Amino acid sequence: MLKIYDVSMAIHPGMAVYKNKAEKRPAMEVSRDESKGILETRLYLDAHTGTHVDAPLHVIPGGPGVESLSPAAFFGPCRVLDLTGVPEKIERRDLMPHGLSAGDFILFQTRNSWSTDFDFNFVYISAEAAQYLAEAGVRGVGLDALGVERDQPGYPTHRTLLARNIMVIEGLRLKEVPPGSYFLLAAPLLLPGVEAAPARVLLAGRQDFYSFLSNMNESREMRSE
Amino acid sequence: MLKIYDVSMAIHPGMAVYKNKAEKRPAMEVSRDESKGILETRLYLDAHTGTHVDAPLHVIPGGPGVESLSPAAFFGPCRVLDLTGVPEKIERRDLMPHGLSAGDFILFQTRNSWSTDFDFNFVYISAEAAQYLAEAGVRGVGLDALGVERDQPGYPTHRTLLARNIMVIEGLRLKEVPPGSYFLLAAPLLLPGVEAAPARVLLAGRQDFYSFLSNMNESREMRSE
Repeated sequence: MLKIYDVSMAIHPGMAVYKNKAEKRPAMEVSRDESKGILETRLYLDAHTGTHVDAPLHVIPGGPGVESLSPAAFFGPCRVLDLTGVPEKIERRDLMPHGLSAGDFILFQTRNSWSTDFDFNFVYISAEAAQYLAEAGVRGVGLDALGVERDQPGYPTHRTLLARNIMVIEGLRLKEVPPGSYFLLAAPLLLPGVEAAPARVLLAGRQDFYSFLSNMNESREMRSE
Repeated sequence: MLKIYDVSMAIHPGMAVYKNKAEKRPAMEVSRDESKGILETRLYLDAHTGTHVDAPLHVIPGGPGVESLSPAAFFGPCRVLDLTGVPEKIERRDLMPHGLSAGDFILFQTRNSWSTDFDFNFVYISAEAAQYLAEAGVRGVGLDALGVERDQPGYPTHRTLLARNIMVIEGLRLKEVPPGSYFLLAAPLLLPGVEAAPARVLLAGRQDFYSFLSNMNESREMRSE
């Protein structure tokens, strides 16, 4: 059985939202009642509610929205790095020992993954670390906080990453995930012209996933003989 | 380059919604303005807006919501069947020639995929065909309509499929997809206690996907030597 880690936040009215802002809380309203044998619900979400992906338009006026993200970017190998020792912000020196390569998709496991409420002092990616990630040529970055930065005027971390079309995932939950190599599936809703989109994000152990697929492929070939 | 088919509906205010009901239309409201260098949007969606997944709670009072769907069900092999010749509803006789097997995930390409407006006469899955799918032991079903049935009192198609935990995807767009074997990625938002969830759904050619992954795996192994 293939082990899957669901690294998405559950979306519900009591969930942690950015700076605890009431207007960011999701709400659900039953629009059709189950007494008629069917239940239907209307959803009120912020585009940045829970686990989500940012697009350049979030910080670059006139930039592209989430429709610009290529579906080919939504799955592939990724690495989960242990940065649980970082107290306040991820710096270049925290990344250097991990040997980043062009095309890597990097998820940062920090102490944020152990908070259930919104933490005003969440660990973020410094402007300098974002620059380092961009220079390394990573294809995507994910953090276990509702933002990739805080308290940096002009949003340099967002701008550096998004201007280079590096995929940015926020709101991951990585507490249960041992650092290492995974296969990532990250599927944001298709919201043309919107600057962000809620996403379901899953990780499968990388070797497990390859074995699972090759077994599946062999059994399919045997069946078709 | 791996070819990916995005079979999801774009979510926007003018999109087709079930029976053109105004209360099902999505809306987007800018909550923070880009004049401050940042743009944020609030979303109003129906759980059944666009491409989405139904959970048992939709038609089974007290049944589980989308949290009950196993992430392992969100990806795996699937088949796209050409049912473009079906005029009104998919019947058992339309499925029999395709040789369904236990564990199959089946997507139905019908004339619905060529409609851009909501079609009150959309092709649906008859109660009898749902029974046949359940007996075959399929693990999932997807249709290119905003519902898997219409005009069937008591929702027997939904009930038959969902009572057996067969995954149900509605609102697919399959016009561009040649019938055949694919690898499916279908990721609904994690909405505990809700009867349905919007989802991003992608297809990759099955052999292409396996080749892509094994190349990726080999190049990774070479790099780590």
